[in-house]
Amino acid sequence: MTAAEAVSPLAPEVFPSMPPVPGVRLSTHAAGLRYQGRADLMLARLDAGTTVGGVFTSSLCPSAPVDWCRAILPNGTARAVVCNAGNANAFTGQAGAVAAKLTAEVIAEAIDCQPAEVFLASTGVIGETLDPAALTEALPVLAGSGDAGWEAAANAIRTTDTYPKGSSRPVAGTAAVVAGIAKGSGMIAPDMATMLGFVFTDLAVTADALQAALAAATEASYNRITVDGDTSTSDTVLSFATGAAGNEPLSGPGSPHWEAFVDALGAVNLDLAHQIVRDGEGATKFVEVTVTGAQDDAAAKAIGLAIGNSPLVKTALAAEDANWGRIVMAVGKAGQKADRDRLAIAIGDEPVTEGGVVRDGYSERRATEHLRGDDVRLAVDVGVGSGRATIWTCDLTHGYIDINAGYRS
Amino acid sequence: MTAAEAVSPLAPEVFPSMPPVPGVRLSTHAAGLRYQGRADLMLARLDAGTTVGGVFTSSLCPSAPVDWCRAILPNGTARAVVCNAGNANAFTGQAGAVAAKLTAEVIAEAIDCQPAEVFLASTGVIGETLDPAALTEALPVLAGSGDAGWEAAANAIRTTDTYPKGSSRPVAGTAAVVAGIAKGSGMIAPDMATMLGFVFTDLAVTADALQAALAAATEASYNRITVDGDTSTSDTVLSFATGAAGNEPLSGPGSPHWEAFVDALGAVNLDLAHQIVRDGEGATKFVEVTVTGAQDDAAAKAIGLAIGNSPLVKTALAAEDANWGRIVMAVGKAGQKADRDRLAIAIGDEPVTEGGVVRDGYSERRATEHLRGDDVRLAVDVGVGSGRATIWTCDLTHGYIDINAGYRS
Repeated sequence: MTAAEAVSPLAPEVFPSMPPVPGVRLSTHAAGLRYQGRADLMLARLDAGTTVGGVFTSSLCPSAPVDWCRAILPNGTARAVVCNAGNANAFTGQAGAVAAKLTAEVIAEAIDCQPAEVFLASTGVIGETLDPAALTEALPVLAGSGDAGWEAAANAIRTTDTYPKGSSRPVAGTAAVVAGIAKGSGMIAPDMATMLGFVFTDLAVTADALQAALAAATEASYNRITVDGDTSTSDTVLSFATGAAGNEPLSGPGSPHWEAFVDALGAVNLDLAHQIVRDGEGATKFVEVTVTGAQDDAAAKAIGLAIGNSPLVKTALAAEDANWGRIVMAVGKAGQKADRDRLAIAIGDEPVTEGGVVRDGYSERRATEHLRGDDVRLAVDVGVGSGRATIWTCDLTHGYIDINAGYRS
Repeated sequence: MTAAEAVSPLAPEVFPSMPPVPGVRLSTHAAGLRYQGRADLMLARLDAGTTVGGVFTSSLCPSAPVDWCRAILPNGTARAVVCNAGNANAFTGQAGAVAAKLTAEVIAEAIDCQPAEVFLASTGVIGETLDPAALTEALPVLAGSGDAGWEAAANAIRTTDTYPKGSSRPVAGTAAVVAGIAKGSGMIAPDMATMLGFVFTDLAVTADALQAALAAATEASYNRITVDGDTSTSDTVLSFATGAAGNEPLSGPGSPHWEAFVDALGAVNLDLAHQIVRDGEGATKFVEVTVTGAQDDAAAKAIGLAIGNSPLVKTALAAEDANWGRIVMAVGKAGQKADRDRLAIAIGDEPVTEGGVVRDGYSERRATEHLRGDDVRLAVDVGVGSGRATIWTCDLTHGYIDINAGYRS
C-alpha cells in the first residue's frame, strides 16, 4: 500500500463539515482483519422503521455480501449496515456465504434485530476467506464502540482511497438532511465500480420510492464515472431513510418535498462520485467529458465513456498534450452514429475542430493552457441528433501502474 | 519518439529470411514527410492481373486512405499499394480526400496503371494534412527507386513499432508462397488496430475467394489481439494474389491447394498479429488467454477480450503478481454467461481455482514462476457450455505511459 500513501493532488483540502442524520449512529473498530493501525470495520445502526434502497454491481461474479444484500433488499427495511475494508469476500464460495451470514447474525444479536435487517459490504482483495473466528470476536466490539463521526466512518471503509469521502445536503423546505460516505479509487467503471456508497436521510420515505430515487441518482452519478474501465465484484450503493424527521412517508412525485429530496439525494451522490474520480488511482486531472449531438442520450453516454476509457486519450491528458486526434479515434470506436464531417471538438473553451477538420484559428497554445489545470473539460458534438450526456474520468499516469502493480504486497 | 527507441524485449532476434513473391516489387524512399533519416514511404508494385482482398477498421471515423480503398476494392484488381508512415491522413476532411486521390494519381502515372488500381495506407498522427507539393515531389522518386527487400519495406511502414514485422509460409504442395509485412504496436484492439498488414502470394486467386480467405484469416488473427483496447481510424489489411505462379485461379474450397493456401495465409497473418502484440507499447509479457466452457465461441472471445483489456489484469501481469482475483473480476464484467461456482482458472500449468474457490494445494509459487517468463498463458473455463476462443495481449507497464504521453513531441 506504500504507493497509495500520498494523497491525491485532486483531494479536497478538508473533509466536509457534515451534520448528523437523526436515526443513524456510526461506529468503527480496528479489527486488524487486513490492515494494522487503522479502523477497518464500520457500522451504521439505524432506528426501527428505517427503509432501504440498494443498487449493486452488474458483475456476473458478485461477492457474497452483494448476494446477501440482494436477497434481503425486497424486505425494504434495515437496522444496520456493516462494512469491512481490505477483503472483498468475493469468489470465496460457500465459505464466503457463511462468513456473510455470520456477520449479519453476530451484528443482529448485538443490536437486537433480525439478520435480514443487516446489510453488508466488503471491498478489498478477491478470493481470500474471511476468518469466522476473527469476525465473531471483532463484530461485538464494533457494535459496542462509542459513536464515531462521518470522517471516522469514511476512513474505516477505505482501501486504496487516499482520502475519506463524504457529502451532505439539506432537503430544501424541510429541516431534514441527506448525508453519505463513499469509497473507491480503482476498478472504477460503470456499472459500477469497486465502490461503496452509503447515503442516509432522516426523512421517512417508502422503500419503493427510495429505491426508485436511488436508482435514478446512481444512473446520473456512479454510472457516469470511470477510472479504468474495470468493474468490481462488490459495488454497492445503499440508501437509508430513518424517518426520524417524523414526516408522512414520501411515496413519490406526488409527496410534499419529493423533488427537494430527490435533488439532495442526487447532489450527494454526484458529489461522492466526483470525489471517487478525484481519487482515481494515480489521477492528476479531473476530466469532464460532455457529448452532444448524439442519436440519443444512451449513445451520447457510450461515446463519452469510449473517450473516458481510452488509454490513449488518458495518457495524452496526463501529458497535457492537446492530441485531439485521439478523441476522434475514441469517437470512431464507440460504435455509435457520428458524422465525421460535422464532428466538433472543444478543449476547455477552445474549439478545435469543425466540419471534419481542424478549425482555422485553432490555438493549440490555449488548449494546452487549459490542459495544464487540474480540472479539464472536453466537449464533443457528433452532429447527428440531440442526445447528450456528461461523464467524468481522470488521466492515466505512472501512478496507476505503481499502485496496481503493487496492490497485494 | 525517444521512448520508443529501445527495442521491445519480446522482439524476435532477427527479421525472418523471406523469399520474394513473384509478381511483387518493393521499393522505399526517405521523403522526410514526418521522420528524418529513415524511409517513410513504401511501394509494392504488382503485376497486371493481381487480385486483391481487403479488411478495414470498424471505426466510424475512418481515414481518407480507408475511404479510398473501400471505394476501389469492389473492382477486385490492384497494381500497387503505397504506404506512408507518420501521418494518418485521418480527420483531414476534403483535404485528406484530395491528398489520397493525388497519391493514387501520381503513382498510377509513374507506373502506368489506373488510379483505381492503387491502394493506399497511412498511419501516424491524426488531423494533420499531408502536403500535396511534398507528395507530388516524393512519390515519383519512390516509384523510381530500386528494389527493396522485405525488411526495408517493413521498416518503412513503422511508426511507434520498435522492430519490423514480416512472415512467410510456403503453400504446401505447390512452389508458391504467402509472404507479408505488418506494422502496429499501440491503438491495437479488435476490430482492428492502428495496424497495417500487406500479405502477398504468387498464386492466382479470384478476388472473391481472396476476400473470403482474408476475412477469415483476419477474424482468427488481428481481431483477436489487443494492446490497449483502442481502435484506430486507419486499420487496413490488404492481401494480393499476383498469379505469377501460373495456376488456374483458386476460387474457393473446391480448388486444388485451396486448403493449403488458406493455411499459409492464416499462419502468416497470425504470426504477424503475434508480432504486433510482442511489440505492444511498453510490453514485457506476451500473454495468451484461452477461454473455454462459454455459451458459444463469440461469448468466449468477449470474455477473453475482457480479460485481455483489463488494466488491472495487465498491471498485475507486469508485476508478475498471480492476482487471479482480477481475472474473476474481468470475467464478471464481460457481460457473458459464466458460472461463478464452476469457474476454473489456470496460470500456466498451475490450476488456481475450481468450484468457485481457490483450489486445495494451489501453489502461488508455481504460478508466479510461470509469470516470471516472457510468455504467459492464462486459461479460464467458465463452466456453462462448449464455446472457446484464444486471444493474445500484453502487459501494461510504465513504458506504455512513457510512449503515449510523449508520442507527438
